[in-house]
Amino acid sequence: MAWDTQGTKRRILRAAVEQFAAGGLDGTTVERIAAAAGVNKERVYNYFGGKRQLFDRVLSEELAAVAEAVPASSFAEEDIGEYAGRVYDYHRQRPFLTRLLRWESLAFDEEVPDEAQRRMHYAQKVSAVADGQGRGAVTRDIEADHLTFLVLSLAGWWFTVPQVARMISGLDSDAEHARRRAAVVLSAQRIAGVSQR
Amino acid sequence: MAWDTQGTKRRILRAAVEQFAAGGLDGTTVERIAAAAGVNKERVYNYFGGKRQLFDRVLSEELAAVAEAVPASSFAEEDIGEYAGRVYDYHRQRPFLTRLLRWESLAFDEEVPDEAQRRMHYAQKVSAVADGQGRGAVTRDIEADHLTFLVLSLAGWWFTVPQVARMISGLDSDAEHARRRAAVVLSAQRIAGVSQR
Repeated sequence: MAWDTQGTKRRILRAAVEQFAAGGLDGTTVERIAAAAGVNKERVYNYFGGKRQLFDRVLSEELAAVAEAVPASSFAEEDIGEYAGRVYDYHRQRPFLTRLLRWESLAFDEEVPDEAQRRMHYAQKVSAVADGQGRGAVTRDIEADHLTFLVLSLAGWWFTVPQVARMISGLDSDAEHARRRAAVVLSAQRIAGVSQR
Repeated sequence: MAWDTQGTKRRILRAAVEQFAAGGLDGTTVERIAAAAGVNKERVYNYFGGKRQLFDRVLSEELAAVAEAVPASSFAEEDIGEYAGRVYDYHRQRPFLTRLLRWESLAFDEEVPDEAQRRMHYAQKVSAVADGQGRGAVTRDIEADHLTFLVLSLAGWWFTVPQVARMISGLDSDAEHARRRAAVVLSAQRIAGVSQR
């Protein structure tokens, strides 16, 4: 009987993303991930190397997933506000991503896992902003890289410091999420000079 | 000879903020904080209770410090962009604050340390925005609480996910910091409807 290698790998990765999101790189072990996936820990080592390699793989997959789920090719053609709104929706549906980014920010001072690939994903967003600028749809008085980062900050900070969001604007009911999202969309448009007061 | 109680307490708090910023609530011990402060660990227990109480005290002091260092009473009279710029400067000078907020966000699901006092600090900022709105200086189409949070996000996200900032817009030299700050100031003004394209 053939062993379902791909299925087992997916199970291990699903267990790993949950464990790392909960406790960071230092907060879990290969043993615990293997147990959560229902496999022998030797299988984790065989498929992925060690814990650090598995963490790298998880970060890399999560970042590729958001890039694929919320694409952007040119903000001359796509609305940058709606893009920010979709990033907000993604974070809401997938809280693992910002937890992993927070753990990473606290653990790594220099190069981060899978940095080259991740730079490419971000460069794609900067290029979508630059294209919008080149074709007159987006303001040029904020550089494309900074504008990209600031738009992502509007969408991401709610999920990065949720305790601050709660203290400032209350519990995140569905209605409150809708209001937050609308404020994010409008703010991104304003920063980009697409919508004015 | 009189024991310098206040001086000792300050030394313990300084050691605690460094230890907690580095490793979070779970990443250090009262023993290690006491050793860093050069005191006996019983003294830490006597002055502050346990580790959790000391963590609460540190968070509370750091939040009071930023509220005092970067005040805001009304954005009808003060420029909201310059306020965002000053928050940016504060985070740059005092990276402990966002590290503590990140640790806290990963550790606490519900009420956070010193929540009542911190809500008051945030309410003061929301009131400064609302006053700006009431007197026509600030846009009313984003609610005051959301506008406050979004302005803080523009200033804070650089320091909360510094690895993302680096991948998108390069290393944070002094010149790069000046460009980021200028983009933050302008973006906050745009969101608030103070500056248009």
